[in-house]
Amino acid sequence: VTAHSALHQAMGPGHEFDTIRALLGRWGPLASGIGDDAATLHAPAGRTLVASTDAFVENAHFREGWITPEEIGARATAAALSDLAAMGARADAILIAFVVPDEWRERLPAVADGIGRVVSSAHARIAGGNISGGSAFSITTTVIGSATRVVPRSGARPGDVLLVTGELGGPGRALCDWERGDAATGWARERFASPVPRLDAGEAFAAAGAHAMLDISDGLAADARHMAAASRVDLQIDVRRVPCGPGVTVADALASGEEYELLVACPPHIVASLLASTPERYGVQVTVVGEVVQASAATDSGAAASTVENRDSRPGGRVLLIGTEGGSPLAEFTPGHDHFLT
Amino acid sequence: VTAHSALHQAMGPGHEFDTIRALLGRWGPLASGIGDDAATLHAPAGRTLVASTDAFVENAHFREGWITPEEIGARATAAALSDLAAMGARADAILIAFVVPDEWRERLPAVADGIGRVVSSAHARIAGGNISGGSAFSITTTVIGSATRVVPRSGARPGDVLLVTGELGGPGRALCDWERGDAATGWARERFASPVPRLDAGEAFAAAGAHAMLDISDGLAADARHMAAASRVDLQIDVRRVPCGPGVTVADALASGEEYELLVACPPHIVASLLASTPERYGVQVTVVGEVVQASAATDSGAAASTVENRDSRPGGRVLLIGTEGGSPLAEFTPGHDHFLT
Repeated sequence: VTAHSALHQAMGPGHEFDTIRALLGRWGPLASGIGDDAATLHAPAGRTLVASTDAFVENAHFREGWITPEEIGARATAAALSDLAAMGARADAILIAFVVPDEWRERLPAVADGIGRVVSSAHARIAGGNISGGSAFSITTTVIGSATRVVPRSGARPGDVLLVTGELGGPGRALCDWERGDAATGWARERFASPVPRLDAGEAFAAAGAHAMLDISDGLAADARHMAAASRVDLQIDVRRVPCGPGVTVADALASGEEYELLVACPPHIVASLLASTPERYGVQVTVVGEVVQASAATDSGAAASTVENRDSRPGGRVLLIGTEGGSPLAEFTPGHDHFLT
Repeated sequence: VTAHSALHQAMGPGHEFDTIRALLGRWGPLASGIGDDAATLHAPAGRTLVASTDAFVENAHFREGWITPEEIGARATAAALSDLAAMGARADAILIAFVVPDEWRERLPAVADGIGRVVSSAHARIAGGNISGGSAFSITTTVIGSATRVVPRSGARPGDVLLVTGELGGPGRALCDWERGDAATGWARERFASPVPRLDAGEAFAAAGAHAMLDISDGLAADARHMAAASRVDLQIDVRRVPCGPGVTVADALASGEEYELLVACPPHIVASLLASTPERYGVQVTVVGEVVQASAATDSGAAASTVENRDSRPGGRVLLIGTEGGSPLAEFTPGHDHFLT
């Protein structure tokens, strides 16, 4: 830690602290203020603070050999940052809690490099963390940031247009390959291993006046239901417009979890501008996939509709999938991704 | 969640979300604003924000049967809050990331009750979290709070008096009993199972003008070295003054980790007042255990001294244990607690 020792508290001896010193040496100026009982944060004037925590757990979210240690670190950090993107926030401080079994210790530097790469690209800093032993490797990442204008998932209004970033289905396809014992390759593997948190795009959507936003880490269909439930509206998604990645069916694109794209409900008058500017400015495509309708609307007239009921007794919370023909493209549809993998 | 549904976003269906709804039902008004991608925080004017994350991991920090699920939840939360106490901060928002193996699911409500009990006593709120599957139960708790005056561990100055709260050695003794296969009982078990974060006392020490503070979760000796290293000073601890719990040796009291008491370096003129007021106001005893000396001081003249070297090349970082006779009471001394239990 010699190069950047002024950034941190000096620490006493001990195995855990040797590990921390080694991590700090790798992170360099990306980490600052480490070593006290808690990190000191800076609340920027006129911005709202937001915080989220997310875990990436061996044998729950990934298995040995699927992705590299560097990718594990990057993926864990990107997934956590995606929750800030979904609020329209930018990242400031990141706290990282590792559980490190003995056999993972030698991989920790590579994991740290992956974390550092994503923290750097988000213009954030590592402000603290924790290391403990345990029988399964995990990274629990807490991200703290701020927004000029927070966009909740609960603000969708009837008449809003639904946009989604990116192309869907890659992580689901990679998981399917791995679970079958095959190697995941190419685009699908990359989408699982190296998701990009849509921080800049999310901030731009917020600034433009988006009404509601969330990331679709549980899959488009499942997270659309969360937006519908929180906003007390129904959402219509036209399955013909869902942006599917190469070789991905609509049903798989709807169900694929581990996507770190954004679903945005926005007033119609800002749509054209977002569609035109987002790919060029933020390097990600944006697609209109549907619209927000009143909670009482039952089905879209003329199109076959498949309804997934919300278990909540309050109005809204339904996602109407339109554009299906006799329901056949969705016969294989299964409700979205649950974090309790088994 | 009917009773307090106005506090949260409505969520869509799914096993994970049923679990979250059940937890929110137990927590009632202790949890608020749950369900969005990230929690919104309130930065109080004129106070400094602080944040810390801490993990409590099955088979690393505790084993099946040692303490009850309710105590596991309470202990995890208290340990995390202790880091805020050590900064002189009060708690505001708590984010809780659970890893829940299948066999732990039915214990989750009791764990939640323990969390709720400690969150309530800290006048804090549960603002968010995460649930995932996995092979070992863990709770990673992120605490966010604020302080009027942050007390770092790096502010100790030669001439400062060292105070420690509470009576030490209980958690170490309980762990020793459990590791031997015996039942831990009484005071020692209670000290492991139900530590009390010294939030009010910590805030009072900060307000009174303490120079440096940390919690001794790694044990008094190990954490004293951290304070010495961070402050570029040496610390003298008089082993005859270390407050040992019933039946605990000085060596065990020095080495016992999982203590959530505070070590405080403060200017001599505030000591009498703190000693007099703290037990009555905050229900915890405070003991003078030593003093801060210049980094160049080698040994205390006349008293036998046992020196633990800091691996850092910078000055300071040594803890001089004085009051030993021929070193014998410390022959069994082992350097403090490391989070890498094996």
